[in-house]
Amino acid sequence: MKLATYKSVDSRDGRLVVVSRDLARAVDAGGIVPTLQAALDRWDAVAPRLAALSDALDAGEVNGTFPFDQAQAESPLPRAYQWLDGSSYLAHGRLLDRAFNIPPIPQADVIPIMYQGGSDDFLPPRGEASFVSDEDGIDFEAEFAIVVGDVPMGADEATARDAVRLVMLANDWSLRALQPWEMKRGFGLIHAKPSTAFAPVAVTPDELGGAWRDGLVDLRVLTAWNGKMFGRPSGGAMDYRYGQLVTHAARTRRLRAGTIIGFGTTSEGQPDKVGSACITERRGYEIIQEGAPKTPFMKFGDTVSIEVLGADGRSVFGRIDQRVVKARV
Amino acid sequence: MKLATYKSVDSRDGRLVVVSRDLARAVDAGGIVPTLQAALDRWDAVAPRLAALSDALDAGEVNGTFPFDQAQAESPLPRAYQWLDGSSYLAHGRLLDRAFNIPPIPQADVIPIMYQGGSDDFLPPRGEASFVSDEDGIDFEAEFAIVVGDVPMGADEATARDAVRLVMLANDWSLRALQPWEMKRGFGLIHAKPSTAFAPVAVTPDELGGAWRDGLVDLRVLTAWNGKMFGRPSGGAMDYRYGQLVTHAARTRRLRAGTIIGFGTTSEGQPDKVGSACITERRGYEIIQEGAPKTPFMKFGDTVSIEVLGADGRSVFGRIDQRVVKARV
Repeated sequence: MKLATYKSVDSRDGRLVVVSRDLARAVDAGGIVPTLQAALDRWDAVAPRLAALSDALDAGEVNGTFPFDQAQAESPLPRAYQWLDGSSYLAHGRLLDRAFNIPPIPQADVIPIMYQGGSDDFLPPRGEASFVSDEDGIDFEAEFAIVVGDVPMGADEATARDAVRLVMLANDWSLRALQPWEMKRGFGLIHAKPSTAFAPVAVTPDELGGAWRDGLVDLRVLTAWNGKMFGRPSGGAMDYRYGQLVTHAARTRRLRAGTIIGFGTTSEGQPDKVGSACITERRGYEIIQEGAPKTPFMKFGDTVSIEVLGADGRSVFGRIDQRVVKARV
Repeated sequence: MKLATYKSVDSRDGRLVVVSRDLARAVDAGGIVPTLQAALDRWDAVAPRLAALSDALDAGEVNGTFPFDQAQAESPLPRAYQWLDGSSYLAHGRLLDRAFNIPPIPQADVIPIMYQGGSDDFLPPRGEASFVSDEDGIDFEAEFAIVVGDVPMGADEATARDAVRLVMLANDWSLRALQPWEMKRGFGLIHAKPSTAFAPVAVTPDELGGAWRDGLVDLRVLTAWNGKMFGRPSGGAMDYRYGQLVTHAARTRRLRAGTIIGFGTTSEGQPDKVGSACITERRGYEIIQEGAPKTPFMKFGDTVSIEVLGADGRSVFGRIDQRVVKARV
């Protein structure tokens, strides 16, 4: 099934809607559960009812449906209790290590890199993304993410895999000029990682069909910058599997329902062939090839669109469409 | 006023209760608002009604009160949308830099250190704290924290100070053996920072009287390990002010209501005089004085208690009382 969260003046968590597989129509899920987090809190009881509503919606057997308007959507979880973002495409890191002549992250090739991100304020998929300055190296990162249910501390991979509830598409905004200094301090990324946005629709893994295989999502992530195609790397190039990301996250603490785990910026490490899912990778490639970066980061007024098409050519998660604007401070 | 969250089988967010100033009695706040997060979401509308209930409770004018049982309390926010922990006592960092012969964190003396912690699963203040192994350097960290309302991106210090809603007392559990490796990777602390616990009662700043001054909490944090006093450093030794912690957190992103910001382990940098609020500081002192640490970290079965007494000698936040146990994996 496909789920989205409509904006609501009554709640910062919006209201849950079930969306048809073709993203054309939706129906309010409030009769079953008010919000996506509430659904995740008691998934086993709620999911079958939502799935039945989804089936009925696709069969045209539900009253009270309405055209699904992606512009009315919040991120599926407008705020969450945990957002952990991995880095699962080793080609991306290797390209950057080479470009910037920096030593590899310790054991990055055998243990996932992961950071804890802010989850109190996810941006809606459509609309403005505010930044204090466009001199901070504003960059998008187009990537897949999963939402898990409860995961016990020290979970094994089989348990971790079973905990996956939903798959999402994210734009993990980054401020590249602020990142090296924060990384040197060793305590992680706060200034360098402003609010993330997620595509309008979260989907259960079965909606991905054969593309949900081998512990990854084997679909291309399409990113356009100011309306021009920037990259279409395949999620299938992932080196870690989502089960490994979950076990890594749960090594010393349990994860509670609604935890979001990102796969990291999608990359085939071949900006010349398939483009990139973030600007910094293209700049790294330019450094390697030409000695210096020539592509600038984003400026106020720029737009980015991120989408994934299924085997049938239709949008799976809906489209992220954001415009970079100056924050009103 | 003083607020707590009672455990509830119906909700992972528990149910909000108002607690008397002497922590003796409580009354359900469900007639006003169901949970603390819901109260923070619309604080201006809700806080005056909660304050009125608090005043009536203290005046003995409320029906349906009951003895306040700290063992029935969750952390005031059993889960939160954001937990950022600073490091505001520079003497602590300097002692450790010297003990371990490591270079200072870049600009730690002028820009706060802060990490983003997991907030999906705060532990109750009383009961078991589970860990996968007691070979990982299990350590407590006794510290103050504030809960803020909405803070705009790039907020100035006056705006930041006005956003403070509540003050809490935390035990920020740490796994010291895992911390150096994570810090070297540069992406922050996940394995080294398992679930945090907060004392049963969150208080509005006015409850601290004269101890809420100069942007800090001027009260001693008392920590006992296995029933024996371990440290009583003063919160008044803080180098940064809470307004600086909030502006640091909000530099490139707004903070949403319910964000918790910790002050970092309380320290006077004088383990010989007032003890410490964490084991690693004592070990660092032992290294400096004797060439090697002699105090071990916590083992399964050990207990830690953390409390703060007001000028009247009474417990301000109630007491954290946790026992270290092996996780059932």
